[in-house]
Amino acid sequence: MNSTPSQFPSTLNRTHDPAATSWVASAQAAGTDFPIQNLPFAVFRHRDSQEGFRGGIAIGDQVLDLWDLTRSDLLDGLALQAAEAGAKSSLNALMALGPKAWSALRHAVFDLLHSHASAVVQQKMLLCLEPQAEVVYSLPARIGDYTDFYTSIYHATNVGKLFRPDNPLMPNYTWVPIGYHGRASSVQVSGHSFKRPRGQVLPPGATEPVFSACKRLDWELELGAFIGPGNALGEPVALDQAEDRVFGLCLLNDWSARDIQAWEYQPLGPFLAKNFATTISPWIVTMEALAPFRTPLERPDGKTDDLAYLRSEANTEQGAIDIRLNIGLATEAMREAGQLPHVVCTTSYRHAYWTLAQMVAHHTVNGCNLQSGDLLGTGTLSGPTLDQAGALLELTQGGKVPVSLPNGETRTFLADGDEVVMRGWCERPGSARRIGFGECRATILPALI
Amino acid sequence: MNSTPSQFPSTLNRTHDPAATSWVASAQAAGTDFPIQNLPFAVFRHRDSQEGFRGGIAIGDQVLDLWDLTRSDLLDGLALQAAEAGAKSSLNALMALGPKAWSALRHAVFDLLHSHASAVVQQKMLLCLEPQAEVVYSLPARIGDYTDFYTSIYHATNVGKLFRPDNPLMPNYTWVPIGYHGRASSVQVSGHSFKRPRGQVLPPGATEPVFSACKRLDWELELGAFIGPGNALGEPVALDQAEDRVFGLCLLNDWSARDIQAWEYQPLGPFLAKNFATTISPWIVTMEALAPFRTPLERPDGKTDDLAYLRSEANTEQGAIDIRLNIGLATEAMREAGQLPHVVCTTSYRHAYWTLAQMVAHHTVNGCNLQSGDLLGTGTLSGPTLDQAGALLELTQGGKVPVSLPNGETRTFLADGDEVVMRGWCERPGSARRIGFGECRATILPALI
Repeated sequence: MNSTPSQFPSTLNRTHDPAATSWVASAQAAGTDFPIQNLPFAVFRHRDSQEGFRGGIAIGDQVLDLWDLTRSDLLDGLALQAAEAGAKSSLNALMALGPKAWSALRHAVFDLLHSHASAVVQQKMLLCLEPQAEVVYSLPARIGDYTDFYTSIYHATNVGKLFRPDNPLMPNYTWVPIGYHGRASSVQVSGHSFKRPRGQVLPPGATEPVFSACKRLDWELELGAFIGPGNALGEPVALDQAEDRVFGLCLLNDWSARDIQAWEYQPLGPFLAKNFATTISPWIVTMEALAPFRTPLERPDGKTDDLAYLRSEANTEQGAIDIRLNIGLATEAMREAGQLPHVVCTTSYRHAYWTLAQMVAHHTVNGCNLQSGDLLGTGTLSGPTLDQAGALLELTQGGKVPVSLPNGETRTFLADGDEVVMRGWCERPGSARRIGFGECRATILPALI
Repeated sequence: MNSTPSQFPSTLNRTHDPAATSWVASAQAAGTDFPIQNLPFAVFRHRDSQEGFRGGIAIGDQVLDLWDLTRSDLLDGLALQAAEAGAKSSLNALMALGPKAWSALRHAVFDLLHSHASAVVQQKMLLCLEPQAEVVYSLPARIGDYTDFYTSIYHATNVGKLFRPDNPLMPNYTWVPIGYHGRASSVQVSGHSFKRPRGQVLPPGATEPVFSACKRLDWELELGAFIGPGNALGEPVALDQAEDRVFGLCLLNDWSARDIQAWEYQPLGPFLAKNFATTISPWIVTMEALAPFRTPLERPDGKTDDLAYLRSEANTEQGAIDIRLNIGLATEAMREAGQLPHVVCTTSYRHAYWTLAQMVAHHTVNGCNLQSGDLLGTGTLSGPTLDQAGALLELTQGGKVPVSLPNGETRTFLADGDEVVMRGWCERPGSARRIGFGECRATILPALI
């Protein structure tokens, strides 16, 4: 990667101006996730097209086709190079280019979509737009390795109480950004369905397991970070350069089979309880778009003496990001009745104990190599109160207190036919436009018999 | 994958005839790893060549170049198709073809290399051979996901005693083929060096960790299994078809930082203690070549009541494989004195509690998808006695009893400059030719300062 100035701590520029508007009218719609200040990336194709998947940028209710854009005469230099890298069937090549190239493309597209763009530019750009309603998405990158962290101390404590009542929070938690390797092959893009997993579970009071469909199927509300430029084996990434290695963030649902997990997880961690499916949103919001929403690191214990490789002033002062998150649940009965998903949890990424930069610095401090397109999950982003709990396990206190739905149904864990929809957005009315993540949606199918 | 008869349980055929010889003289050398009955696969190139890596097959001290072979007129049909898939810079395409294709290529190459081959054939084949002494290897496949199991009950018990004296073997061990996801990006082929990792460790008696170079660096003696045809998400592989999904086995060293591991591993398992490096042998020995060395499942507890998805007569009667394994250590001083690696452990894969077929069936029973080129590690293959322990942690009883080397040096854990060499082979004098795995070698470099 090139030696451009670090994007961390972030600074604001003209693409963050809350007054900026686009000639694409839907980008000004109230509540849109995709104003001109956002410009997130996905990989898509027209639903009826025989053409292949290619990179795109969201604007209002449209997708800007990067393949078409590279064939216009609207870009040059580094922005064109970045668009060409992004026009492929995965964004890995664009991710590898680094923050200077990402920013060049972002600024060029911002200008081309801005209300001040000339009529000629707008006419050419119109040829590069497709309605989001007419496209389908694929995974945005070939994911080499998927790592999941555990950055919410609230989640770690809530779950610890259930799995280990005597020892809820391990002594290493406030020192180590705990993480583990997940399964890359089963990461799917929003909109898919998957079968309820089967496996070994230990019935209450039993000493021998039985083979069963999972009876405690859960979601985990997370964000995913896609790695930009990688690092070579044996070459750690320092904390204050770590965010230069992050292309952007997506929504992530780390589906979990709690009964399988409880029986299998010792001593080597979760395996079949997690690797049957992980769902991510198609849209990746860039770190630059999130700059207005940086906040100081907030820790309930006030800890400030992280080991040196995890500590910096920038990390303490702006390491967190205020990304609002929620989870909606729509049962089959609700969908048949035309009811929208019922929101059962609202929280924010600002509550994380460990930051993105700390995740990257920790992951590489032993020499481990990250590669462009690798995915890092934040872990379940539970906040300080029960209604901010990012998993059913926590919301229902281990399955004891059901969640009530508007139609009278209740859930302790997920039922077949349930659809789970995660959403994420940033807002700071007056000083910044709302930046959204779109949605991350999937439906539970019955287990194999 | 096609619906050919399962290769499990294995049957013997003409390629297993111990009397068969090759016109390549070195294939008859005493102690060769690569007689005509073996024919393992690797990806290689000539060390001085500008040409790319391509698949090859070992015979004696030579490599048969599959790219050259496909350009001869010596193959046709399925064997040619398999050779073309194997002639690329990774073996993923060959792996995807399945056992019928692998066997067709194996039988065709066996005949072409057999002493009975005509002079014309031998002349053409000579043009496809390169001395192993003049080639370099790459990873044999693009590894999508790497999973590591824990199939030796002796290792699990030995390590458990050190990490959890009160609770050495978890109650799930004899029911669940325990596994976890490892790091694919840091898997390297034999011959590389890597830096000693750094990380958080908890000094004895301390309550707060320090940042340090690893002081308890260890090896783990394992075998790796490369996945052939994958399975779709949500479609488990049944036990008696599971070996059809295994292309073959290699040697694997799962390097481990024991001090980092002890501090980080709860509750989500090993992470930075393992993901800095994993070394595999270049050669993959096919399941067909290993057929003469199948043995009954041997368990010290005599357990036979595995859950139904993990139980079959074939698995019980021939699920194990008698692959002898050893580890040699050569310190810098030993190498400077021209001394060979000193063997400190000799064991066999026959002692594993869980079989390859059980690993595949368990991994997929929840619907998890395996892909061609995925790597499954067996876990450390310790046998029943102390001198069969596959890790220094066990051999030195937690670092308390040093291993003595012939030159008077001792080791509890690895020192900078140490070179570790694993070897594997099958032998059954009189009824089968010796089948070898070559070597798996790497050297420890000093940590970053």
